[in-house]
Amino acid sequence: MVDILIKNAYVLTMRGEGVGMIEDGAVAVERDRIVAVGKTPDIEKNYRGADHIFDAKGKAVLPGLVDAHIHTSLTLLRGEAQDVPEIEWMLKTMAPFMNYIEPEHRIKGAKLGVLEAVKSGTTCFGEIGSDMAQIVEKVFIPSGVRACVANTINEIGPESRQDPNKPYIFFKDIGEEKLRESLELIERWNGAAEGRITCMLGPHAADMMSKELLLRVKNIAKSKGLLIHIHVAQGGREAIQIRLKYGTSTIRFLDDIGYFDEGVIAAHCHQASDEEVALLARRGVRYVSCPSSIGLIDGITPPLALFLASGGKYAALGSDQASGNNSHNIIKEMKIASFLNKTRHRDPTILPAWKILRIATIEGASTLGLGDAFGSIEVGKKADLIIMNLKAPHLTPIISKPVRNIAPNIVYSARGDEIETVIVNGKIIMENKRVLTMNEEKVMLEAQEAAEAITSKAAEDYMRADSHLAKAARKGLL
Amino acid sequence: MVDILIKNAYVLTMRGEGVGMIEDGAVAVERDRIVAVGKTPDIEKNYRGADHIFDAKGKAVLPGLVDAHIHTSLTLLRGEAQDVPEIEWMLKTMAPFMNYIEPEHRIKGAKLGVLEAVKSGTTCFGEIGSDMAQIVEKVFIPSGVRACVANTINEIGPESRQDPNKPYIFFKDIGEEKLRESLELIERWNGAAEGRITCMLGPHAADMMSKELLLRVKNIAKSKGLLIHIHVAQGGREAIQIRLKYGTSTIRFLDDIGYFDEGVIAAHCHQASDEEVALLARRGVRYVSCPSSIGLIDGITPPLALFLASGGKYAALGSDQASGNNSHNIIKEMKIASFLNKTRHRDPTILPAWKILRIATIEGASTLGLGDAFGSIEVGKKADLIIMNLKAPHLTPIISKPVRNIAPNIVYSARGDEIETVIVNGKIIMENKRVLTMNEEKVMLEAQEAAEAITSKAAEDYMRADSHLAKAARKGLL
Repeated sequence: MVDILIKNAYVLTMRGEGVGMIEDGAVAVERDRIVAVGKTPDIEKNYRGADHIFDAKGKAVLPGLVDAHIHTSLTLLRGEAQDVPEIEWMLKTMAPFMNYIEPEHRIKGAKLGVLEAVKSGTTCFGEIGSDMAQIVEKVFIPSGVRACVANTINEIGPESRQDPNKPYIFFKDIGEEKLRESLELIERWNGAAEGRITCMLGPHAADMMSKELLLRVKNIAKSKGLLIHIHVAQGGREAIQIRLKYGTSTIRFLDDIGYFDEGVIAAHCHQASDEEVALLARRGVRYVSCPSSIGLIDGITPPLALFLASGGKYAALGSDQASGNNSHNIIKEMKIASFLNKTRHRDPTILPAWKILRIATIEGASTLGLGDAFGSIEVGKKADLIIMNLKAPHLTPIISKPVRNIAPNIVYSARGDEIETVIVNGKIIMENKRVLTMNEEKVMLEAQEAAEAITSKAAEDYMRADSHLAKAARKGLL
Repeated sequence: MVDILIKNAYVLTMRGEGVGMIEDGAVAVERDRIVAVGKTPDIEKNYRGADHIFDAKGKAVLPGLVDAHIHTSLTLLRGEAQDVPEIEWMLKTMAPFMNYIEPEHRIKGAKLGVLEAVKSGTTCFGEIGSDMAQIVEKVFIPSGVRACVANTINEIGPESRQDPNKPYIFFKDIGEEKLRESLELIERWNGAAEGRITCMLGPHAADMMSKELLLRVKNIAKSKGLLIHIHVAQGGREAIQIRLKYGTSTIRFLDDIGYFDEGVIAAHCHQASDEEVALLARRGVRYVSCPSSIGLIDGITPPLALFLASGGKYAALGSDQASGNNSHNIIKEMKIASFLNKTRHRDPTILPAWKILRIATIEGASTLGLGDAFGSIEVGKKADLIIMNLKAPHLTPIISKPVRNIAPNIVYSARGDEIETVIVNGKIIMENKRVLTMNEEKVMLEAQEAAEAITSKAAEDYMRADSHLAKAARKGLL
């Protein structure tokens, strides 16, 4: 008995070195797994009795997209923090809101972020943040997506960062509490929802906690066989803190204490020197690059192409947060990632379409330590699949010779709205562009109300902080 | 009698220095012009009898987007030319097709390109190319869009560029013929279709024709009061040619012969030094920047922010061609333009959302010399308007305080598919996302057939040219 048969499609399997295209391809799914992949005539004859048959003529089937570093719970602040100097982003455009964000706001934000991302083809979320157990239970599990989650651990309290030029004051009790929460998350949710939920440890960043706690987390991760997902070399504030405390750079410091190995997923790394990027690659660190977010917040292209050229094995894309990106759309992220890296290195051959599609799928899954489980369309893998309609002016014509243009057109011309069907773990969670597992209207309405609640309370603090953006608003430019 | 009333909208008028927002705004249109703009209650009472009333609650109304440098006739080659070294793009991925492109292919390509662009909100096309009279008559006029067109003039024949390291051989008769065609285009079509068509002179580039012909074109433009639209400093091949011929750079050469003034629209300029960009700004040259195209073809961010910082008065965005971009979507182009310039200068404050929206509308129109006629929503201006539905997860929430987030969300999160209605010169050319002036199915089908005709003939030449992309195809990566 087969549950789903998709046929007559361009199947981008991601097998082999490229996109692994099968023209007139078919995929059969039984329960949560892919049970057959091949040419339609070969596959169809054995699986005519499927419950759901998708005729995907003129459509592409891809592995679900992986957004490997994302904070969906901040989606409510979309459009309130950009076009400001790096130093202002956290202090003058994000911080004013933070005091007014309640746990229920994070859940409403996460629902909105997941809805947005699913609609543009994301099936796997590398989510880091606070209140993760709640977000797993109330958002990731019911929405049907796959998530690799970590509660952020740090020792930062409201009094920690009075003066950014002095070492932050750490609060041990806060660190203990956050570590306890992290361990509870893992205990309760790792492997839950038929394996859709994977838990990790999330030390926030090297400047946000003591060396002792960093090392404790590292040891727990090792002993439990869990990955660590950590922000690394994420900007000027971090660099100042690490210099003050340890007299070196973040990456040198973390390497000195033995932090870097295949057990670590490092996000960002845009403050790294070329040598430090090479060091990360050499240590086998997994890298998540968030080009739009870091482009918008820092005006920097993070070193994705450089990491790969340095021998880095696993790299993924992340959309980070909607208050600094400002969207969760891996289809759009692929073009931006490619262009920012091409111009960073003044080399148009860098990150070609086929490669960036792999980074957004199989290599993204591998970065999260789950490349054996999903991320490509192969027999035995979890059925995380998206169907994309290519019948649109901006994806026309479809050419097979001399060069098959489907992969370039998806990367450089698609926008995300072409995704019609999303399947995760063998379940159809979106069909005909409607998400079946969420009430779209309600999610948007509740997000709107929650955002208004936060922003109306924070408006005065925000304007007082007087960022470039606040100034532009005051001048009526927006 | 009023033809169109749009009410209850967020109206981004582009009046003043910023986006000129009117919340709960309305716009009334009579024949081809805007006759009233203001708050809905004030406007509505006088215009209840309009033929078409759009209730745009939860929607944004903007001036139609301006794509100021575009070659829609090359749309059929989408996805066949990218991820290759700059030197290969023209010679190894474009040239193999060029011998097989017939005039009818250009028309079918142009229809597809216009359809694609209109669907993402473009109302004005700065089209440069061959067979322009045909494209005007068969594509721009019937599709209902606004176009500023020029036939390219050059003295290049099939024998001209045997050796890229020797000066190109110019053919006077080719130049004469192309100049004649250009003048005929102007005579026949300038001001046609109720003023929707504006003609310019299009000397191809400084390396593609003799100094004498360049100057003749310049003088004709002056005497007829027409703008010149020319590719300037567009890459390595041009730089070599100008050096060989004149012993200097393109911009120095053109300045030496008195080419630069407010009568010139210069496209690209990515081969310009900072001083040369400043020179262009000082001379009052109008600049069209094509960030995605030049990013993809050359791995370079063209100097849009630098031009503006140097005092450049008029700047616009262009999508260039679908074989090197690979899309005609100004909504997406805005985000990429902002990000590429932010990272070029390592400054996240560069090209903020409100500014890039102005560049895509009123400043784009001004770059084409028509800022007094359209590009903003003001009484007396031509009614080129788009209505964009903001009710989508990726544009939620809508916040008015502390910072109105509609402009940032349009620039950094929209994708183009939110455009529902397109009005040009007071005529509705798209409604409910369907283009009324074109048969979408037929345009796509004919484009597909034409593309197959070209690519099947060219496939052997293309593979023999052995570009990076051909190699990737041969390896099965695509």
